[in-house]
Amino acid sequence: MLSPNNQPHQGEPLTFPAAQAALLTPYLPPPPPPSAAAGPSRDDEDEAPAGSTHSPAVHVTLTYAHSLDASIALAPGARTALSGPASKAMTHYLRARHDAILVGAGTAVADDPGLNSRLLSPRPVVLDPRGRWAVHEGSRVIRTAREGMGLAPLVLVGHPAAVVEERRRVLEAVGGRYIVLEPRAAGGRRFDWADVLAVLRREGLRSVMVEGGAGVINSLLAPPGNALVDSVIVTIAPTWLGQGGVVVSPPRTAAEDGTAAPPVRLTDVKWCPLGEDVVLCGRIRR
Amino acid sequence: MLSPNNQPHQGEPLTFPAAQAALLTPYLPPPPPPSAAAGPSRDDEDEAPAGSTHSPAVHVTLTYAHSLDASIALAPGARTALSGPASKAMTHYLRARHDAILVGAGTAVADDPGLNSRLLSPRPVVLDPRGRWAVHEGSRVIRTAREGMGLAPLVLVGHPAAVVEERRRVLEAVGGRYIVLEPRAAGGRRFDWADVLAVLRREGLRSVMVEGGAGVINSLLAPPGNALVDSVIVTIAPTWLGQGGVVVSPPRTAAEDGTAAPPVRLTDVKWCPLGEDVVLCGRIRR
Repeated sequence: MLSPNNQPHQGEPLTFPAAQAALLTPYLPPPPPPSAAAGPSRDDEDEAPAGSTHSPAVHVTLTYAHSLDASIALAPGARTALSGPASKAMTHYLRARHDAILVGAGTAVADDPGLNSRLLSPRPVVLDPRGRWAVHEGSRVIRTAREGMGLAPLVLVGHPAAVVEERRRVLEAVGGRYIVLEPRAAGGRRFDWADVLAVLRREGLRSVMVEGGAGVINSLLAPPGNALVDSVIVTIAPTWLGQGGVVVSPPRTAAEDGTAAPPVRLTDVKWCPLGEDVVLCGRIRR
Repeated sequence: MLSPNNQPHQGEPLTFPAAQAALLTPYLPPPPPPSAAAGPSRDDEDEAPAGSTHSPAVHVTLTYAHSLDASIALAPGARTALSGPASKAMTHYLRARHDAILVGAGTAVADDPGLNSRLLSPRPVVLDPRGRWAVHEGSRVIRTAREGMGLAPLVLVGHPAAVVEERRRVLEAVGGRYIVLEPRAAGGRRFDWADVLAVLRREGLRSVMVEGGAGVINSLLAPPGNALVDSVIVTIAPTWLGQGGVVVSPPRTAAEDGTAAPPVRLTDVKWCPLGEDVVLCGRIRR
C-alpha cells in the first residue's frame, strides 16, 4: 500500500535529511543534464542522444514498505499503516527523483492514491490491462492534478474497449490520457515489462519508481522482469501483520533446464536504519 | 532452519566481534552471578533467591534468520543457506549466552542439528509432543554430546507412550532424557509455553534461545505465548526465496471483544547491519 494520502500530518517531517538522501543516491537515476533541466518541460527531453540509434534505458527503481512477514497490507484493499514518518518523508524524496511513478490498477482502486510528491511530482502511470480503474472527478490523482499539486496520469490499458468514455473525458480534462498496449505476458493478462518501459521512454520518461501493489512488485521481482530493475529500495517495519496479509514474494520460476531457478538475491546491499524502520537498498544480482 | 552443522568452514570467522556483541547485550539474559558461575555445575543453580516465594522467570530469546519474504527455508525439511558467515558467528555467540537452546521436533527431524556452540554449549531442548523425533546413535546432537562437544538433549514428549525404548536408551547413554509434559495448547497438539518454561526452570535452566522451526516460532510470536518472550533477534538476508517457502508469520488472533487483535509490534528496536544481512533486535510491545 502507498503512504496514505500525501497530506502533511501534524508533526510529520516534510524534508528528508540530506545525510540520509546521500546514502540513497547510488541507487537513484542520474539527475537530468543541466540543459534539459533548463528546458521548458519534461516532454521536450524525449530525444535519444545525437548519434544514438536507440533510446537509452529507463531507470527502474522498485520501492515499497512491508512488515517483517513481508506483508504490505492486512488484506487486499486494506490501507495499513506500516512505516514511520521518516519513511514517508523518504517516499516523497524518492518520488521527486523520478520522472514517473507506477502502480497497478488494484492499488489505484484500493488506495485512491495521490501519486504526487510535496517536492517535485513525477508522472503517475497506472497499469490497467483490463480497465478496472474507474477514475472519476473525485479521484485523488485527478484532484491533485487539477489543483496543480501533481501531474495528470497516464493509464495503460490492454484494449481500446477498456477505455470508458466518461473516464477518458475526466483524464483528458486534467492533461492525462489512456494509452492502449497489448498485454503480452501471463497469457494476455499482463503487460510485458519491456513493453511498458518502451512506452515510458516514448513519453520522455527516463526513470520510473514502481510502488505497488503486490501483483506488480512480485511480477517485477521474478524473471524476466527483474532483469529490467536497476535498484530496489525496501522499507521494513518491525511488526508482523500475521498470516493472510498481502505478501511480497515472487513466484518461483524454472531455469532453462527445467530445474528451479535460484532465489533472487540482492547485491551492492546497504541497510540504513530510519526511525524504527530499516531501509534496504540493493541491486538484483544477475 | 538452523545454521548448517556447527562445523567450522574454511574462511568462516569463529569469533563474533566484541563491538557487535555489545549491541546485542541489552537483549540477552544477564550473565550468571559470580558465586553461581563458580559452582560445580549449572544444575546446582536451581534455587530461587533467598526470601523469594517463586522462581524467577526464564529469559526467552527468540532468534532465527529469514529471507526478505520471511522464509526460513525453501520447503519443509530443505536446508537453505541464507545468512552469511558473520551471522553464523553471531549464532554461536548467542547460543553460548543461554542455558538452553530449544527447537521443535520438525527441525530436529529435518535438520539433524548439533545444537551446540563452539564457545560454551547450551542444553538442547526438543519439543516433541507426539514423539516424532527418532533420535539414534548417529544423530548429530548425540554424537556431539558423546564427543564432549555439547550437552545431551532434554526431549519433551506429550505422553509416556511417545517414549520409544531404544531412543530412551540412546538419549540416556549420553546424559540426556525424556520428560513427559501434558500438551495443553492447540487442542492437545502443542505444549503450553508457560508449562515448557516451568520445566526449564525446574531443570535449572534460566535462559533459553528458541531457534525454530516455523511452527515453534509462529506460536511463540502470537498471544498468549508472546507475553513470555523477552527479546527477539531476527537476521534478515537480502534475498527472496519465493512463494511456497516455510514462512515466519504468526497466526492472527482475536482480541477479547472478538475483533482482530492488533499486529504484533517490536519496541526498543535496533537494526545492526552484519555483512550482507541485517540483525534486528527488539522486544515485543505489550
